[in-house]
Amino acid sequence: MNYPSKLLNEIVDEISKLPGIGKRTALRLALYLLKQPQEQTQSLAETLLRFRNEIKYCKVCNNISDTEVCEICQDNSRDHTLVCVVEDIRDVMAIEKTGEYKGVYHVLGGIISPLEGISPTDLTIKELLERIENYQIREVILALSATVDGDTTNFYLYRKLNSLKNIPDISTIARGISVGGELEYTDEITLARSIQNRVPFDQSIKQNK
Amino acid sequence: MNYPSKLLNEIVDEISKLPGIGKRTALRLALYLLKQPQEQTQSLAETLLRFRNEIKYCKVCNNISDTEVCEICQDNSRDHTLVCVVEDIRDVMAIEKTGEYKGVYHVLGGIISPLEGISPTDLTIKELLERIENYQIREVILALSATVDGDTTNFYLYRKLNSLKNIPDISTIARGISVGGELEYTDEITLARSIQNRVPFDQSIKQNK
Repeated sequence: MNYPSKLLNEIVDEISKLPGIGKRTALRLALYLLKQPQEQTQSLAETLLRFRNEIKYCKVCNNISDTEVCEICQDNSRDHTLVCVVEDIRDVMAIEKTGEYKGVYHVLGGIISPLEGISPTDLTIKELLERIENYQIREVILALSATVDGDTTNFYLYRKLNSLKNIPDISTIARGISVGGELEYTDEITLARSIQNRVPFDQSIKQNK
Repeated sequence: MNYPSKLLNEIVDEISKLPGIGKRTALRLALYLLKQPQEQTQSLAETLLRFRNEIKYCKVCNNISDTEVCEICQDNSRDHTLVCVVEDIRDVMAIEKTGEYKGVYHVLGGIISPLEGISPTDLTIKELLERIENYQIREVILALSATVDGDTTNFYLYRKLNSLKNIPDISTIARGISVGGELEYTDEITLARSIQNRVPFDQSIKQNK
């Protein structure tokens, strides 16, 4: 597009580098900021810089944290022998919201993805293995997305974990039909998995309570 | 949502103030920036500030411009007696893209919207009236969106323009079915307007060439 101003052109370019934001949306956002008080842009820019420069990661689980060790890892009422491996902070938040999980986490910072150029060394896999070697970890739950990249990462981690001296139990979150989901509209692979991994009815009744 | 970090909370709040961006998207954008080189955030923040603080408006037409008078207003090959009144720079860009318009513009900076608290004094209506009083303007084209707010603004401008000493011709852009549009799917009001404002067939043939 032909912008009548270089500055406008530059800001549209910068904003549209963000994922899911095209030139049109970028222009809309830039024009919106022009109509707002200058302080809003000031505050946005300053917070962006502070966030990018000062953000810290928990030295135990690698989750984003304001303290050296995050609140979850500091919580003594949680089971520190149970580690749930997730991709990023959003997954931690999603699992915490269920209120059902009492173990701790390990945040990988991504999943292995050859297409996007993310290799195992870009993730905190080394830190995970060291953590399991050095602390008494009873079980590791692999809780990655049920995508090709997620499965690849699961297999990679499974092999790595099995090469350790003290091999923990290794589990993965259940795949099956969603609660409230209709059989008819569930894809075949998911349906097959939900039959293979069926659970005793007694147990299912208890969970529904 | 419960974020494990104040800084993360702050940046999500700041980003989600932008229109059309919710907390979820804001979190996604913030995490994206963390994975990119620090320079990207630096450059984004600096460009935001520079854009907001240094942007200039053409002193003739109020369009965004890097110079005191914008390129369009400086162009002597254009008809400066024909002024097209638009809401913002996006409309100027849209009309310029057609390559059909040879007059100049007047950018209102918005439209009158009681719901959003935008009154006539927030717009450059006074500047428009002064411009018409002081320069020889032959015709004013009102090219605002065909919405309730757009129509309100059109009527307001029409009355103001008619109270001037030298009343220019006042026209508005045609409303009718889109080129390529099917009659069957056109709403009744638009269809009625397209019949009321029918044009001689000869003229229409010439335009299709």
